[in-house]
Amino acid sequence: MAKITSVSPLAPARFPDLPAIGGARFATTAAGVKYVGRSDVMLALLDPGSVIAGVFTKSATRSANVLDCQEKIRLSDENGAAILVNSGNSNAFTGRAGDDSVRAICAAVAEVSGLPATRVFTGATGVIGERLPHDRITAAVRGLHDNLDETGLPDAARAIMTTDTFAKAATTTVHLPGGPVRIAGIAKGSGMIAPDMATMLVYIFTDARIAQDDLQKLVSALNEMTFNCITVDSDTSTSDTLLVAATGASDVPVPAEGTAFRDGLHSVMLDLAQQVVRDGEGATKFVEITVTGALSPSDAKTHALAIANSPLVKTAIAGEDPNWGRIVMAIGKSGAAADRDALSISFGDVKVASNGWVDPDYQEEQGAALMKEQDITITIDLGMGSGAATVWTCDLTHGYISINADYRS
Amino acid sequence: MAKITSVSPLAPARFPDLPAIGGARFATTAAGVKYVGRSDVMLALLDPGSVIAGVFTKSATRSANVLDCQEKIRLSDENGAAILVNSGNSNAFTGRAGDDSVRAICAAVAEVSGLPATRVFTGATGVIGERLPHDRITAAVRGLHDNLDETGLPDAARAIMTTDTFAKAATTTVHLPGGPVRIAGIAKGSGMIAPDMATMLVYIFTDARIAQDDLQKLVSALNEMTFNCITVDSDTSTSDTLLVAATGASDVPVPAEGTAFRDGLHSVMLDLAQQVVRDGEGATKFVEITVTGALSPSDAKTHALAIANSPLVKTAIAGEDPNWGRIVMAIGKSGAAADRDALSISFGDVKVASNGWVDPDYQEEQGAALMKEQDITITIDLGMGSGAATVWTCDLTHGYISINADYRS
Repeated sequence: MAKITSVSPLAPARFPDLPAIGGARFATTAAGVKYVGRSDVMLALLDPGSVIAGVFTKSATRSANVLDCQEKIRLSDENGAAILVNSGNSNAFTGRAGDDSVRAICAAVAEVSGLPATRVFTGATGVIGERLPHDRITAAVRGLHDNLDETGLPDAARAIMTTDTFAKAATTTVHLPGGPVRIAGIAKGSGMIAPDMATMLVYIFTDARIAQDDLQKLVSALNEMTFNCITVDSDTSTSDTLLVAATGASDVPVPAEGTAFRDGLHSVMLDLAQQVVRDGEGATKFVEITVTGALSPSDAKTHALAIANSPLVKTAIAGEDPNWGRIVMAIGKSGAAADRDALSISFGDVKVASNGWVDPDYQEEQGAALMKEQDITITIDLGMGSGAATVWTCDLTHGYISINADYRS
Repeated sequence: MAKITSVSPLAPARFPDLPAIGGARFATTAAGVKYVGRSDVMLALLDPGSVIAGVFTKSATRSANVLDCQEKIRLSDENGAAILVNSGNSNAFTGRAGDDSVRAICAAVAEVSGLPATRVFTGATGVIGERLPHDRITAAVRGLHDNLDETGLPDAARAIMTTDTFAKAATTTVHLPGGPVRIAGIAKGSGMIAPDMATMLVYIFTDARIAQDDLQKLVSALNEMTFNCITVDSDTSTSDTLLVAATGASDVPVPAEGTAFRDGLHSVMLDLAQQVVRDGEGATKFVEITVTGALSPSDAKTHALAIANSPLVKTAIAGEDPNWGRIVMAIGKSGAAADRDALSISFGDVKVASNGWVDPDYQEEQGAALMKEQDITITIDLGMGSGAATVWTCDLTHGYISINADYRS
């Protein structure tokens, strides 16, 4: 079984033009952590005045890097900050040696940048349980620092890839009362993707001016509607990290009133989250699942994720089979409230089931035609209340098996 | 993608010799519910004096048959009873028409047997959401009744198969103070198999004499340790049913003291549960996962099932890859308590990880050799308390994708 290396059929048509974000500079290098002949480390340096907000995996076996970031994220400090990320090795379940690796990397970055080590954030992604050869990274830190550049973000998107088949980035410009601010972010993720505890590696930069606690509240709230609403395979990484850095370099404050900045950040986060699904291992279909009419938003999300994580639903979609019976099954097993006779199911605009059975007007050919599309929308109305949620997932194919039955070899 | 019809490589070497169970008779027929050229309906008739205990899926979209059985199982009645099961159509999510089908079948069986309809239990398994052509079944009921025979249980095991690749049965004889009693059971199940809410279709018969409430308590308790400890694909059927009928024909009472009957029933239930896993769709490996040292038995089971349901763990096993990092990941995401630095992982007798990292004595070749076996045992000690649990699962292969991307076609 060979690793699949061709680009996902669901990939965006092109990589976006990323603007420079004032106060943020980037560099990448090929440190040889694991991969040969490609960049595998990125360094981001944020000028004094920057604030950083973050959310992290809740995994009980999360990586040394995540534990270190979690300790540091709460410290509000405007000395500036650095973010160093490697691919090829997740530094998870590597015991005390893993903690030592993080300390060594932070010390090296602190030395070349003049920052305190408490302002150096790290991320790592790749195989679990193998010692991180951090000396290869620390040896590269000075060279990275010498090459920092405002235009380096696209290269950073490539440096953090593992099984990803395309580099992921998104950007927007938000027009605030004080002037425009820019938001640009990158992400990696393709397998071991499940929500509710986790995100993946995501780094977003903006030149807006905003207080750290305001930014943290915003990021945490938007995370629930974006990265925590996607799933590829129901498995949660030990390394998932989302960091959002606001440099303030635009001198444009985010006003307390108004939703323009929130909407802009939401669009970048949702774009990146959906790109992770579009690069789901082996994916051939992008699926949006909306549940309405639930007793609560939480019930709606439970149902939507039960459908999105069901191997039988995902294989039916892979086979272009409008097998709505499996959606009924997933609703039934989710544990959240449902009433068989009140729920209805639609594929796209076509109502498939209602009143506890197949809809009298539904023709199997309609469902079969919709299933041949690359992007599929499934809507379930539970008919019980006003709770709603939308999640995004992909199908489960032979490609997923091939990639994951042979990943370490 | 073609349906795989060859017998699972994990199938038992032979079908067991099933004894006659006094007071229980069986018949099967090819009613043409969906399949062509094979039996698809079984009828079991239990003499007066029989008691029946049952457990059922907790799915919120459970089938009309399950809902009907649940109403009837609580009625203690010793008039005798009948069980009619069809394959090829689950009669789930078929609205009020589904309820009507159950009523029609129960009425037909009541008429030929002289039983009240409240003592007729039904089961159905197969595709969800298609109208059950119950007239084909009611038309066959008199012929079934005329052919009832004490030796018909092996044929019944075949009549209830759907995607199963082999018929499943198990038996034991228990020697009680009053003499021997026999236990024999059959099961079907291969996909849409997940525990905690559910079992699958399982029918067990014994000639022991036991009160209905004692039998129900025993069955519910043993179900937690057997059928509720298996998973093929984390998806829970809308039809899962376990019925255990005790005819009392041996005139041998089950004593209040002693565990011989409990142990015998446990062995039959565990055997059938493991056979369902061994017939997991596409399965090539049978995997036993034991978690010890958890804070509670419930935490142990949560961890064990998180591992057993992880697509990344299951594909690694399919690829014969001793990828213990994915086990660490599954423990981390389960939501139950774990301490990275206290847990240890073993494959078979080989300790792979301890003290938060790979075990210093572990050689990758040892793990690789164990992964080539057909039956694999994985043990995790959490090092926190005394909670323990064992679950059983299979690997996730191209076969599963092939079977389920094309099931309805």
